[in-house]
Amino acid sequence: MKKIKETIAKIDGLDRNLMKKAQERLDNLTKPQGSLGRLEELAKLIVGITRNEKPLLKNKVIFTMAGDHGVVEDGVSAYPKEVTPQMVYNFLNGGAGINVLANQINAKVIVVDMGIAVDLESHPELIVKKINYGTKSMTKGPAMTREEAVRAIEAGIEVFEEEYRKGIDIVGTGDMGIGNTTPSSAITSVFTGKPVDLVTGRGTGINDDGLAGKIGVIKKAISINKPDPHDAIDVLSKVGGFEIGGLAGIIIKAASERVPVVIDGFISGASALIAYHLEPKVKDYLIAAHCSVERGHRIILDHIGISPLLNLNMRLGEGTGAALGMSLVESGIKIMTQMATFKSANVSEKIEQ
Amino acid sequence: MKKIKETIAKIDGLDRNLMKKAQERLDNLTKPQGSLGRLEELAKLIVGITRNEKPLLKNKVIFTMAGDHGVVEDGVSAYPKEVTPQMVYNFLNGGAGINVLANQINAKVIVVDMGIAVDLESHPELIVKKINYGTKSMTKGPAMTREEAVRAIEAGIEVFEEEYRKGIDIVGTGDMGIGNTTPSSAITSVFTGKPVDLVTGRGTGINDDGLAGKIGVIKKAISINKPDPHDAIDVLSKVGGFEIGGLAGIIIKAASERVPVVIDGFISGASALIAYHLEPKVKDYLIAAHCSVERGHRIILDHIGISPLLNLNMRLGEGTGAALGMSLVESGIKIMTQMATFKSANVSEKIEQ
Repeated sequence: MKKIKETIAKIDGLDRNLMKKAQERLDNLTKPQGSLGRLEELAKLIVGITRNEKPLLKNKVIFTMAGDHGVVEDGVSAYPKEVTPQMVYNFLNGGAGINVLANQINAKVIVVDMGIAVDLESHPELIVKKINYGTKSMTKGPAMTREEAVRAIEAGIEVFEEEYRKGIDIVGTGDMGIGNTTPSSAITSVFTGKPVDLVTGRGTGINDDGLAGKIGVIKKAISINKPDPHDAIDVLSKVGGFEIGGLAGIIIKAASERVPVVIDGFISGASALIAYHLEPKVKDYLIAAHCSVERGHRIILDHIGISPLLNLNMRLGEGTGAALGMSLVESGIKIMTQMATFKSANVSEKIEQ
Repeated sequence: MKKIKETIAKIDGLDRNLMKKAQERLDNLTKPQGSLGRLEELAKLIVGITRNEKPLLKNKVIFTMAGDHGVVEDGVSAYPKEVTPQMVYNFLNGGAGINVLANQINAKVIVVDMGIAVDLESHPELIVKKINYGTKSMTKGPAMTREEAVRAIEAGIEVFEEEYRKGIDIVGTGDMGIGNTTPSSAITSVFTGKPVDLVTGRGTGINDDGLAGKIGVIKKAISINKPDPHDAIDVLSKVGGFEIGGLAGIIIKAASERVPVVIDGFISGASALIAYHLEPKVKDYLIAAHCSVERGHRIILDHIGISPLLNLNMRLGEGTGAALGMSLVESGIKIMTQMATFKSANVSEKIEQ
């Protein structure tokens, strides 16, 4: 817990002075003021986060963390749990959605086994931080021990630290874990106080009966475990997942190092909820890439108070939405740092009205 | 008019058989079916447009067309009209928003003088198709003659033809012309039947008085000229602009060559309206990049029946939104052509429910 406390203690606010200077620069570029909308806001935010007037997004890193979920035995997913390790191999072989979208923006994908139910063949690009061989079913008790929850978050911090030594200018979060919309819905319901029905969706694609069963499972898990919304570690341990905890660690560590974090979809959102309830200052460092089809995602974003950049009916996870969002952040930075000013381009300014 | 008629006659429907095959391919990729949402729809659409099962977006071209507007003398813009040529020089020097965003996605920007009020210094990358030295004020009569309207569209067709010889896989539309939200609002009101007030916004940033004046100007122009919504050339000539006509030419020619067209903001939308009312089949070739802050833009998109990919509060024009949208189209194509299948990656498929 010491590592978590130290990390959180380092998280500071945005540099409002530099953001003001960034706004002035943006307003002098050859375009009507504010006419590039959210691209301009992103540029300004990145200046405030990084405390760098001309930030570069050279090292883009997406952390895709994987874990298994005991609750799959309760029939909550449309896919069998072997898919978790199978997809991890797919990531390592470059064949998954996240590989394709990360390549497009020249981002690196770091794949982490946070708690897959089987041991994977070793691979030079696989980081193993296995907390346990999958969580326990949360319908029968806590998904993990409190100690495991702390270790999952601390493992995320460590993964970030290791990569940070090589350079990280912006981070994206991604997940893989058959069944993991179930803990994500539980976490969302606990922190936001919204009824389970309103925050639970079809995940990878269950039918109506499956959805009704999933809602029942989540209600049961919350009622049995009684997670305390004022104790983020308690929520993670009782109804969370190892990859969800790991990503929460990535998020708080990134914020403590002034690295912007692009949040992917619903599971990443649940991780952001854990991080935000550990330390609300984290909010300033979060960029919501998109709004997922999973109905609980919008509720998470509203709860934290961040607005998604994209709405493309996506629900894959892995960091795919984060990759697209990162490209927009890069657009904003390029606009701010590469466009000509009215003066440099000899363009007349607005007529006084 | 012969060139326009010949071009339109060549526009065909989408290849539904190939789109079905594309859907099958998408459904076999290692992700839950449909989980990449609009990226998948884009990939399928591009297959249907290009009749190519594995389309490549090698040559990305954004046509940024510029023209001046006589109606600026009626005080409709927040910027003086010298800004039109000044910004064209800025495009040619690489300092504008469109240059930065086109560079990010490795797209070429083709700058065309469709009717700027002054002669520009020659530049190897400037295409001059000047129909006239700006339009006339549409509050005093037609903005241009019917012959000029036809020539503007045909010039767009020619510009496309010239570049198409070098290769174009996808096209974006862009505009520059101080005052050009005014003709765009007029065009929108005429074709959609919506009141002028509902389709008129602040353009580059006029205040409340300016907006009221602009609305009055547009109402007057429509009442004096009585453009016929069943005759797209009539609408263009009476309340249009040279760059708007040129872009309509680009759009119909691209459609006739089965090249997908990514539409930028409000002015490009007005061009799309002209093209759509020349030949409704054009719709299948249009991808709406974003929804502009200009309130008439949403109305245009609804009228044509296309849904924007992005909503980032942008209102710059130049093709900036088109560049961002093109990147998403490319994401979709890459997903379809580069991801592993369940079979190739040995990933288990969905459980029968």
